[in-house]
This record gives sequence, C-alpha cells and structure tokens, in this order.
Amino acid sequence: MAMVNRSLVTIDDLSNREIEALFSMADEMSDSMNEQFGVCHGKIMASLFFEPSTRTRLSFETAMHRLGGSVISAVDIGATSLAKGESIADMARVVGSYADIIVIRHPWEGAAKVVADYAGVPVINAGDGGHEHPTQTLCDLSTIKKEKQTIKGLKIALWGDLKYGRTIHSLIYALARFGATILFRPGSGLELPEHIIRKLTTEYTGEFKRYEALGQVVKGRLFPLDAIYMTPSEPHQLAMMPDISVQVELKTGVDALYVTRLQLERLVAKTEGEGLKEDYPVVDKKLLREKEFKRTLVMHPLPRVDELAYELDADQRSMYFKQAARGVPIRMALIALLLGAKEFSISGEVDSFTQKKEYAVYRRDFGVKCANPQCVSVQVTETKYIKPEFKIINKQPLTLRCIYCEHEVHPRYIASSDWHDGTLDNKKYHSADSHWAGKIKPENLILFDSESEAKAHGFKPSRYATARHQGSDEVKVSKEQ
Amino acid sequence: MAMVNRSLVTIDDLSNREIEALFSMADEMSDSMNEQFGVCHGKIMASLFFEPSTRTRLSFETAMHRLGGSVISAVDIGATSLAKGESIADMARVVGSYADIIVIRHPWEGAAKVVADYAGVPVINAGDGGHEHPTQTLCDLSTIKKEKQTIKGLKIALWGDLKYGRTIHSLIYALARFGATILFRPGSGLELPEHIIRKLTTEYTGEFKRYEALGQVVKGRLFPLDAIYMTPSEPHQLAMMPDISVQVELKTGVDALYVTRLQLERLVAKTEGEGLKEDYPVVDKKLLREKEFKRTLVMHPLPRVDELAYELDADQRSMYFKQAARGVPIRMALIALLLGAKEFSISGEVDSFTQKKEYAVYRRDFGVKCANPQCVSVQVTETKYIKPEFKIINKQPLTLRCIYCEHEVHPRYIASSDWHDGTLDNKKYHSADSHWAGKIKPENLILFDSESEAKAHGFKPSRYATARHQGSDEVKVSKEQ
Amino acid sequence: MAMVNRSLVTIDDLSNREIEALFSMADEMSDSMNEQFGVCHGKIMASLFFEPSTRTRLSFETAMHRLGGSVISAVDIGATSLAKGESIADMARVVGSYADIIVIRHPWEGAAKVVADYAGVPVINAGDGGHEHPTQTLCDLSTIKKEKQTIKGLKIALWGDLKYGRTIHSLIYALARFGATILFRPGSGLELPEHIIRKLTTEYTGEFKRYEALGQVVKGRLFPLDAIYMTPSEPHQLAMMPDISVQVELKTGVDALYVTRLQLERLVAKTEGEGLKEDYPVVDKKLLREKEFKRTLVMHPLPRVDELAYELDADQRSMYFKQAARGVPIRMALIALLLGAKEFSISGEVDSFTQKKEYAVYRRDFGVKCANPQCVSVQVTETKYIKPEFKIINKQPLTLRCIYCEHEVHPRYIASSDWHDGTLDNKKYHSADSHWAGKIKPENLILFDSESEAKAHGFKPSRYATARHQGSDEVKVSKEQ
Repeated sequence: MAMVNRSLVTIDDLSNREIEALFSMADEMSDSMNEQFGVCHGKIMASLFFEPSTRTRLSFETAMHRLGGSVISAVDIGATSLAKGESIADMARVVGSYADIIVIRHPWEGAAKVVADYAGVPVINAGDGGHEHPTQTLCDLSTIKKEKQTIKGLKIALWGDLKYGRTIHSLIYALARFGATILFRPGSGLELPEHIIRKLTTEYTGEFKRYEALGQVVKGRLFPLDAIYMTPSEPHQLAMMPDISVQVELKTGVDALYVTRLQLERLVAKTEGEGLKEDYPVVDKKLLREKEFKRTLVMHPLPRVDELAYELDADQRSMYFKQAARGVPIRMALIALLLGAKEFSISGEVDSFTQKKEYAVYRRDFGVKCANPQCVSVQVTETKYIKPEFKIINKQPLTLRCIYCEHEVHPRYIASSDWHDGTLDNKKYHSADSHWAGKIKPENLILFDSESEAKAHGFKPSRYATARHQGSDEVKVSKEQ
Repeated sequence: MAMVNRSLVTIDDLSNREIEALFSMADEMSDSMNEQFGVCHGKIMASLFFEPSTRTRLSFETAMHRLGGSVISAVDIGATSLAKGESIADMARVVGSYADIIVIRHPWEGAAKVVADYAGVPVINAGDGGHEHPTQTLCDLSTIKKEKQTIKGLKIALWGDLKYGRTIHSLIYALARFGATILFRPGSGLELPEHIIRKLTTEYTGEFKRYEALGQVVKGRLFPLDAIYMTPSEPHQLAMMPDISVQVELKTGVDALYVTRLQLERLVAKTEGEGLKEDYPVVDKKLLREKEFKRTLVMHPLPRVDELAYELDADQRSMYFKQAARGVPIRMALIALLLGAKEFSISGEVDSFTQKKEYAVYRRDFGVKCANPQCVSVQVTETKYIKPEFKIINKQPLTLRCIYCEHEVHPRYIASSDWHDGTLDNKKYHSADSHWAGKIKPENLILFDSESEAKAHGFKPSRYATARHQGSDEVKVSKEQ
Repeated sequence: MAMVNRSLVTIDDLSNREIEALFSMADEMSDSMNEQFGVCHGKIMASLFFEPSTRTRLSFETAMHRLGGSVISAVDIGATSLAKGESIADMARVVGSYADIIVIRHPWEGAAKVVADYAGVPVINAGDGGHEHPTQTLCDLSTIKKEKQTIKGLKIALWGDLKYGRTIHSLIYALARFGATILFRPGSGLELPEHIIRKLTTEYTGEFKRYEALGQVVKGRLFPLDAIYMTPSEPHQLAMMPDISVQVELKTGVDALYVTRLQLERLVAKTEGEGLKEDYPVVDKKLLREKEFKRTLVMHPLPRVDELAYELDADQRSMYFKQAARGVPIRMALIALLLGAKEFSISGEVDSFTQKKEYAVYRRDFGVKCANPQCVSVQVTETKYIKPEFKIINKQPLTLRCIYCEHEVHPRYIASSDWHDGTLDNKKYHSADSHWAGKIKPENLILFDSESEAKAHGFKPSRYATARHQGSDEVKVSKEQ
C-alpha cells in the first residue's frame, strides 16, 4: 500500500506499520540531510495557516526546502480571501490547482478533512481546532521510540489540558494503537472529553478506568491521576483490573510525562481561563525528584507557558527540544512519501490493539446537525455545500459521531423514510429512546433534534414520540460541548 | 516588439496580438510544466500585496516557483514600512533595487502605475483598487478562447457588481478590443461607471446602448439587462440598432455569463452594502435552465459569496475553477516574457476594433486635481512627489481623464499661461463652458476647480467667468464619484 | 579569525578589519551577481520579523535567494507562538534546530543577543528596539567608503532622532572606531542618550563636547549643532579643543549628512510625538545650498516621512537609494561568511581608535535589575530564565551597563557576599556612594535598588547606608530612561 496521493487528516489515516516505516525513513533522511536536497525538486507545497504558529509552519516549510522543493504560504486569515467570505472547499480547489501538496492549519474542527475532500492533491492536517494534530503525534511517538526503542507496554502520563489539546487527542489514539498504558493527569476542569473516551474504548482494545474507581492504596501511592487506560499484554490481565495490578504496573515508573499548556485560545469565554490557570499542574525539578520519574522522558509539544519550568532545560530527561527538532525529518519523510518522491512497501496488515469497526453512515440535508460550534460542518460559509454526515456508533442510546470533528450527537427523535403504502398517515416520528431506534434500517433513518423540526418536515408524533426521560425540546449533546 | 522590461498596468498595455501569443505560450508551458523549471533560475519576484488575496498572490508565486525562480513577499500593509508613512514611490525604488520583477496589489487606484514609474524593473498590476486587474482578464479571456476558439462576435454577459469590480473593468476593454458583444446585468446601484462607458465608446469601435432605449419586445424576451455594447461585424449593422437586430443577435444565446461578487470592501459606507446585497442577482440551476444559457460558459473570478450557487459546481458549463487554474500558466508566460527569459516576435500592428487616439496632456502642480478619493495621486503620502496629470479627452464640455485612476474630472474654470504683453491685467480666468475652452492651447491651459483657487493664484474673472449653468463653487465630477 | 558560526548582534562584534574585508567581498559579489547563485545552495535562513519592515526583511531574503539559499519567515507577532506567551529563548532553540542561520528583528532591546545565546546557529540582529541595527550600519559605512574612499577623518553629521534611532546608535560606534568626526544635530527632545555618550567616550579614543561649551563664533558659523565628537588625528589636537580648531576642522565642509525620521513607534506616549514633530529639522534644497554641504553625501536609512524632501531625489549628492540597494550585496557577503560558504583570513589586530576595556561582571538572581522597560531582561516571559547581568563600568559613582540593552543602572545600595566569620551580624548594606563601593571585590558584590529589598534579603543598614545625597527610596537611573 503506497502512500502517494493520500492525505493525513487524523493519525488513524496511517497504519502502525506505515508509521514505523516513516520513522525509519526520517532517521535515514536525518543522517544524510544534504543528500535529500533535490528529492522534491520542482514540487510546490502550499502552507496555509489560519491560526498562529511558529514551530509547525516553519518546520513544514523547512522540511520542504530541505527536500529542494518550493513553498507558497498564507499565514493569516485577515490577509486572505477567507476574509471575503470564501468557503474552505473553494479555497482548497483553487490552491489544489496550484500546489502539489497542501498543509493546512485551521481553527474549525474538521476543516482539514474538507480541504482533503476538495483539493485533489495530498493534504496534511497541521491542526484543526481542538480536533487533531497528527504530525505532532508522529514527532512525539518517534521521540519516544528513539529513546525507549518501543511504544508497546510503556506507561505515558498525559499532563495538563486534556480537553482542548489537539496534540493530546491524536497522541492518545496512537498510544492506544501501539499498546501503551496511558495515565491521565488533567488540570481541573480540563479532563478528557467524553467522546474521546468513547472512541478510545470502542475503537481500540484497551480498558479505560476512572481513577475514583480504584482503591485508596493506589491513590496514595502515585501522583494524582484522573483516569488510566491499560492495554492488556495478556488477555486476562484486565479482566478485573484490581488495584493491586495497577500498582504493580505503575511501580516500575512512568516512561514519559507529556506536558501541555492550557489552550487559552480554545476557551469560549476568557473568564474561564482564570480559574483554570490557578489549578494548573506544574512540572518542575521537585516533582521529577519522585522515584517514579527517575527514567521519565519529559515531553512537551511547545510552546510552553508556566507549566514546565525552565530549570529542567538542562536535565537529561528533557526531550522537548529534541521533539521539536524531530519535526523536520519526520515531515520531510511524510511530504516525500505523499508526493511519491519516496516510497516503501508495507503489507496492509491490520494493527493489533485496534478493533475493526464498520459503522453505518447517516447523511441528510435536513434534521440533526453537529452540535459542536467549532465544527466546520456548521459554519455559515460551509453549510452551502456540506451535508451533515455521521457514523452511527450506537443504537441505544442512539449515538452519532460527526465525520468532520468526531464530536458526538444524541438526536432526540427518529423517523423512517420508508413509510409504507405511500400513505402520509404513516409518516410518523418516534422518540430516539423508543424501540424504533433498533428497528429502522440505517439507510431509512431520519433524525431530528426537536419535535418542531420533525413536524416542519411533515412528520406527526407516533405514540412513541414521548421520550422516557422528559426534557426540554433541545439537542442532547455530550457534556463536553 | 519584445515584451522584456515592459510593465503590465492596464490590459491596454498589451496588444491583441501579444495577448494571443501569450496565450499560446501559456498553453505550451501548461503542456510541458516540468520543462519550465529553470526558465527563471536565479531571478527574484517581489510579491507585494497590500490587500487581502489568496488566489492571485499564490498563483503568481506558484508561477514563479514553477519557472524555478525565487519569491520575496510582503502581504500586509500593517507589517511593512507603509505603516511608517512611506510613499509608494520610495517602496518601489527600494524593492526595484532588490527584485527582478514586481507584482503589486494595492487599494489605491493608479498605485501600480506609480510602482511601474519608479521601480526600474517590470511591474505587474495584480489589482489597484477598483481600477484594473489585467492578469485576471488574461485568465478569463484565455478560458473563453480555449472553450469557444474565438472572442470575436461572442456574446458575453457581465453580471453583478459592475461598479466596483476591477476584474470587470479590465475585461470590458479587452472584450471590446477583441470585438465581442457585451451584455450588462448589474445589481441595482452597481451599474457601470460613466467614465468607463465613455472610455468604451471613445477608444473602441463598438456602440453602447442603454437597454431602456430599446423597445418592449426585446425587454420581454431576455433576462433583464441594463445596457448592451455591440461591435458591428458589418459597418451598417449598427447604424440604427433597431430592436429587431438586437433580438436576432441575442437569440443564438449567451456565450458566457461572467458573474462577480459584491465588492463589499470598496463600499464607502458599510450601510450601503445592506441594500445592495438584497437585490443582488443570483446565478443558479433554475436560471441556467433558460434556453439562452444552453451553451453558456459560467465564469467567476472568485472568491464567490452567494451570487453563484454551489449546485452548479458539477455542471459542465461551469468554468470558474478552470479559470483559477489557468492563472498559473498564464502568469508563468507573462513573467517569463517580461523578464526576457522567453520571447516572441509580434508585428506592431494596430488592433482592429480600437480607435487610435492622441490626447493632449494637462499637468500642473496646482489647480485642478483628481476628484476620486481612492486615486493614488491625492493620497497624503503621495502628493509630496506626484503632480496631477490628465488626458484632455474632450474640450466641450471640458473633460479630463486622470492618468492614474482613469476617473474623469470636469474643471469649472480655465485660464491661459500665455497672458499677453506681460501685463498682469491680462491674467484672467473664464468659465470652462465659455468659448475660451476651445481657444486656449493645451500647453497654455490652466484649470481650476473653484474661483477662489483661481484668485489665489493671481487670476481675475473675465466677463466669461460666469458659467452658463450656475452652480455652487465646487468641482463637478462624474456622477459615479 | 574566521567568521563562520559567529553572530552579529552589535556592530562591535566585527573588527574594523573584518568590516573592510566584508565590504570588499560585497563589491566582488555585486560585480558577479549571477555567479553567487549556488553559494548557499541547500542552506536555510529563518527571517523572523516581530516589527514592521519592508526594506530590511526583503533585502535579507533577496540576499539569501541571490546566494541560492532558501528562506523561511515569520513576519508578525500576532501570527506566531509569541502570541501564546512563548519566550524568545524557546523560539530561538526551536528555530535554530530548523534553520542554518537566523535573522531577527524584535521590539525588545537585547532580544537579538538572547536569540544568539540560545539558537545554536549564527544570528544576525536586524534591529532590536532602540538598541542597534548593525547591518544598516554596514550599508551606511560601505556607501560612505565607496564615495569618499575612507571613513577616517571624515565629518559626518547625524540629523534628527538621535534618541530612539537604532541605526544612529550602531553608526555612532562604527564612525568612532573608524576615526571619523561626528556632528550631532538632534530634533529638540531627541538628543543622544547619556549611556551612549558614555560608551562613546569610554570605549573609543575621541572626545565628546557639548556645543554649548563652544564659543559664539563657532555657533554662528555652522548649522545649529548639539554636540561634536572628534577623533584626534594628532594627539595634541584635542588637548584643549579650542573653538578655533573646531572651526578649522569644520570649514572644509560636511562629508555626509545622515538624516533619520522620528521613530514614532518608540515613543512611550503618542502625545509626546506631536511636540517633537513640530520642531523636527528638515533637509531640503535650501539647506543644501549652504557652502558646507557642497560635497555632502545626503544619507537616510529610509523609510523617510517629511524630514527629507523629495526635491532632492534627483540631486547627485543623494545617496539614500544607493544605500538601500547596497543592502543586498552587503547582506549576501555577511550571510555567506557566517555560514562558512565564504571566508577570508584577517589578523586579530586591535582596532585603532578603540580603548580596550575589561569590565568586571555583575550577575545575580535578585537585587538590582535593568531599569529600561524595553529591555528583554525585564519582560515577563523572559525573566523565567534570564538572570540580570551587567558590566561594572564605573565604581564611583557606581555605574552598571546591562549586557542586553546597554542601558545604564546606578544602584543605590551595596553589600558583600563575603561577610566575615559567618556572623550574620556582619551582613550589612551600605550606600553605593560610600567608600565601600571601591572596597568590595566585584565577585562579592551584591547590589540593591532599595533599602527594603536589601532588608528582605537579610541585610541590615551599616552606618554608611545613608547616601550623601538624600533621595526617595528609588532606583536612580540615567536621565534618558
């Protein structure tokens, strides 16, 4: 399976084997940097950054220049046609007719997918809102791999803003796929969103457990955690996941501490930030004196603010500047592969630690739409051409996952497009909690957020229209919204 | 006539023959893209964009990179020395001493001419306020030519904002020069400016007719027009231009529909925009079902907002993404020609459909100045070195055309620098409406906007100082101001 | 002494011999521009401009492209990670792991030194606040040298904003080092800062004299000056510096008039600007008709506003566009040298006209800190890792020079880290004016801005704690602060 002409929107667009082959290629390139100049001779990369960035943009551009290619860039939403009300799809089509490959950063979640859908050339997601940042994850993983030789079985602690940090979200999926154990240590109010926990537990083979479910013994031993995700090396290991096994697992120490700053720019209200800042956990010399951190890699996607003390810069465990430097060879390998300037042959083997799922798709012009206000699919410039589209990940309770931002929606009312005998009388809607949720075929399903909307489309309430749990006539969405 | 070292400020800087030769070169380049890399090796293009842009800037930069050249760019007025009060001429001279060619976009009309006057290297106008955007016109024309094999005799409808759209203005002159018929369909309040109609009718060989002057029969048949410009294929055809001939002309259908968005950023007051938006004509599937649009190319310079429906994207008649993609080879050919990296030999033949005119020039430090507030010649940073300069395009009524923005001025008072016998008593001013307008030699002419100004320069009223049409002591300018 | 891997933060980072060798190389490159393409093939320059710039940034980028290298750039603080609160050191380390050389402009004084300290690759200061702008000085000097064959013995008048103009500050030191005479003609309120005068008189061999100290005869003869700096060609010449010798010196005319605009963006309060603008001296045709300006080079670092009339553009004495054009070959030579792509061998000879000084260094985490609010060392993002550091340039009165911004600090209280016998009773602080200032060894010195601070660190007042000149408990700093 070649990588040429593919896009990298989420970390799951690459298989484990591809990721490992890419790391090898990055190592080779790093060792023979001067020989790479010319590999992408005559090729043009468009670097479109609609959010502030130094490191990511400059490292992509450096990577392309090191390969001997050219770069065109647009770095600010104010200076571009998006300011004139242009849609992302139009921009993607036009830039795709200029450049050979596109790198995009955008504040809207799912924007990179839209660019990939329309550009006609390979697209790399350099961060789409709070959704994903897969190339950062490649740098992170490759740094860990280089230092510890493996990812499997490692214990990685994620530290700080687990709610808004897109680097965290991509990293979590990758760690799960490679069979690592993840320790969650969020700042208070910055816990991992529900929809990410759900994806973690449904798509990968490990088990997620909130720390409050564990006993006092564990709690007292380790630094304060919020939750833990363990990939069983032996099937029975997690059957019970007793406190004692967690303890055993943890006492060999933490392999990496992945620190993130508070993503202030993602907070809806500025006032929210003040409270969050106060309780934000700090990593410093004192913390790293603890026994479990003796051989811990200290990582950070940078930029840092106050959560990671400068006194650690000279510490041998500190990896953050190495991580950043890794950005160039990793992105060189990725660009060269997607452009077909380099290749490798990988068998299409399914990743271990991944649960292969096939979900039915829900796609309609009307009715339920994504409830995430940062999702690309609900922006006024994009609704002109984007139809809401979801994976139906659960039937009871009915749970949809937006294909753009991967947030979840829980529609309240359902109907069928297959109302028998052409009799309008059969055009009925039911509560999503009723037994109809399991009965209507996915291809016939029609979903509404409210009764008024259902009625506006000509449907009448069935006797199953009243939800068991009464509530106001509003969308029910995941708590993290 | 070689193109090396010339500039492209208005579409009229290129002859029809040159435009056609440039199209052929662009086709060749497009067919052998990889072979072009290196054509401009070692050359540097400065890309100076003082207004928002994605497509135009990126396509110029792509073009230069595809030719193997380098690019330096400044994309935002806030981040440059213009923010420190620097003049355009100073910037042009300095950047001209760095780069081999300059591409400039600027909000002031005539700014590209100033850059071309001072840079000392070839300059390409990438849009100067509401004035011109000649390379967009090259993309438009070449798209039409590719699809319809010719421009001559085609019927092209211009749709939307004909007032502020600079792409429209350049396109109109080009279509007239190539002998096309133009149908004007403006949004209400967005009609073609008077000075452009005047240039159209005085510099080219066709005839302009307001639609209200045509009979009810025609009006009822076609989509609502505002005016029509016809180039006669036979001399007598337009002698009368009876309704019936227009009907015959039109019933074969429209060859291209050129849609533009409302240029919101050119509106003086934001409130103006609201009313204009409401009545703005929309092109969608329904409209294109009409018989006259059966083989119509749907064109748009992009970005679009709401005036062109996304449902047309898959329609075979839609050309707008092709137009955008055309930008790269067209601009490659243009850059290579102006840099002398490529050449062709063209005879200096005068274009058919063009009326060759030689106008006297009026140029003085004081007195009348351009009345267009967006004109480069009246900006506070530029008046330090720019003398107002006009072509005298008509004597009665006295009409000047600014050589920078091409807007018209109608000065109210005239005098002569040749006051006989050295007697100050003979230093008189007259009404511009008086017979003196025809008598004073152009090289002696002195023009004033007001009596007070004339007096301030030592002139006294003659008995012809009172205009026949009394008015307030103000400049009379074209209505479109 | 090779230049490879060195940085250029202040003009004093290059010796006179190196500067002259660099000029020769720039001349050679200028004469064989096409042959330079490829000299820096495969190298990457990071161009980081955190303040508005056209000319400097574009000329650096042009220089790198002319050498066949690549450029990555970040041009606006809003669009980069500094907006997320990142420190300069972090940015420097990260970008230093991408690029082969860094060019930095920043509003904080001393920022370029921090970048050079942390980047790990050569760094060029393209302007750090009001501190220095050494490459502009190289362009200026080389223009003078080209026209006048030498710098030594020339009379150069500096005109306009001598307070905030960083180009002026770098130029002054260079002129002093090359043995020129400098005439100071500031706008009122824009005189040369005290700390620069002090550096001028302590580090170089010339003498500085305020003009008011000269007699009426001189005052009446020449354009109004504020001060003069003379380098003696013969030792005795300046022993007395009588009016008459100044007159003799000056009547041969001014060799260059270096004009600068009012650096409005450096003014703390906008209101300050209004008064300064009114009295700002203007250079125009009339002034240049004076006898002493007959063979004067008219120079300006550009951009100009109103202080230099456009009517001079055609004057043969006008050098400002030549100066700007010089930027490309000068910067090409500099980049090639720092990257090791070119080299020359220069003996490490000490410059004539320079006083070799070795100052003791003061460096502590607490106590006195730089009083310049624009200094990089006092910014909230930078204090996390920067320790204040000073050269002790004088003992009585105790005067420190910040190693970052080169502003002076005059601490009020001193103590010694060597309090005998381990008795806390001996932990005393004294007035900086007392005889203790001369007694405490530099390596033991502890300095405080206030008594409360001294006490907070466990020190008690000695009987020498009271300053001879009583004042409020505040830092005494140079007047220019």
